[in-house]
Amino acid sequence: MNSKNDSRDSILATATRLFHLQGYHATGLNQILKESGAPKGSLYYHFPNGKEQLAIEAVHRMAEFVEADILKSLNKDVSAVTGIQNHILKMVDCFNEIDTLEGIPIGIVAAETSLISEPLRLACQAAFEKWEETYRICLIKEGFELEHATKLSMLINSMIEGAITRCLTNKNGQPLQVVAEYLPILLKK
Amino acid sequence: MNSKNDSRDSILATATRLFHLQGYHATGLNQILKESGAPKGSLYYHFPNGKEQLAIEAVHRMAEFVEADILKSLNKDVSAVTGIQNHILKMVDCFNEIDTLEGIPIGIVAAETSLISEPLRLACQAAFEKWEETYRICLIKEGFELEHATKLSMLINSMIEGAITRCLTNKNGQPLQVVAEYLPILLKK
Repeated sequence: MNSKNDSRDSILATATRLFHLQGYHATGLNQILKESGAPKGSLYYHFPNGKEQLAIEAVHRMAEFVEADILKSLNKDVSAVTGIQNHILKMVDCFNEIDTLEGIPIGIVAAETSLISEPLRLACQAAFEKWEETYRICLIKEGFELEHATKLSMLINSMIEGAITRCLTNKNGQPLQVVAEYLPILLKK
Repeated sequence: MNSKNDSRDSILATATRLFHLQGYHATGLNQILKESGAPKGSLYYHFPNGKEQLAIEAVHRMAEFVEADILKSLNKDVSAVTGIQNHILKMVDCFNEIDTLEGIPIGIVAAETSLISEPLRLACQAAFEKWEETYRICLIKEGFELEHATKLSMLINSMIEGAITRCLTNKNGQPLQVVAEYLPILLKK
């Protein structure tokens, strides 16, 4: 990777982490630039539409990161229940080290920007739908019929997003742990 | 109510609505003052600690509003399932008129401030626990044993909070509708 791509990547990685931890509005471009160590001027060179563009790309980045983890958890010759539980339990571990929260779903950005930025709302919606599609395919493979699998996938995603908010508020992983514990009841055929 | 209380109340009502719709960081004191129509100077007179104090009181206000609705939905001689479903379905209706979202739980403020303001985190945690306590008492009355009722209450709250984020992103009430639909499976004895 050349140094141009290096600075683009480091700006985006820093922005992703900060949006994630502080949300969209609390994160300023100066802080992103400072913490990324990228040369001044490179931010608008790589991201001419500024903060909104950075947030959209950060959401895409988080969407892929989380999707990859869901797939990794599901592709281990385990049942859907066990696979999704493993994905959730990995996040439980994150809440023991609150500073390394990178990769946790996008609830903060989604909630605070959905009503004020249509491009960001659409990016968040696409991310949620990507994850739900991954759950859905896996549930259909296990024999759930289409409509049931579609609703269950939306429910699983909602439970995880809400539990993350509760984990942040509680400063521990218990709410996600409870989601993992009750998942088998919901996915019983 | 005298005019002093009028302006305190109108500042708080406006702040509650704005924090709710835009989140904590996007809401400025000038906007609160302007939209409330309260006289300049009255904001720091009534809320000497400024925005953080306003947000804490707004969270308390939302916590009581939501608790009252949960109690109202549960106190109608219906089962726990039906009562909680009614509470959720009332919120589904709100997402058809997105401008009247007052009273929707506090996920936005909780998610964006939990890591940066300890007093706000504690206010959000107290709100979540208040609602969960209301569910829990109701479930215990129906014969659920303590530990199971405690975990189910946390799960119900997480599902609702996450579904609200999904509803905001989807611009419709379907995610909450799905929570209401699957609640009976979770609360089956």
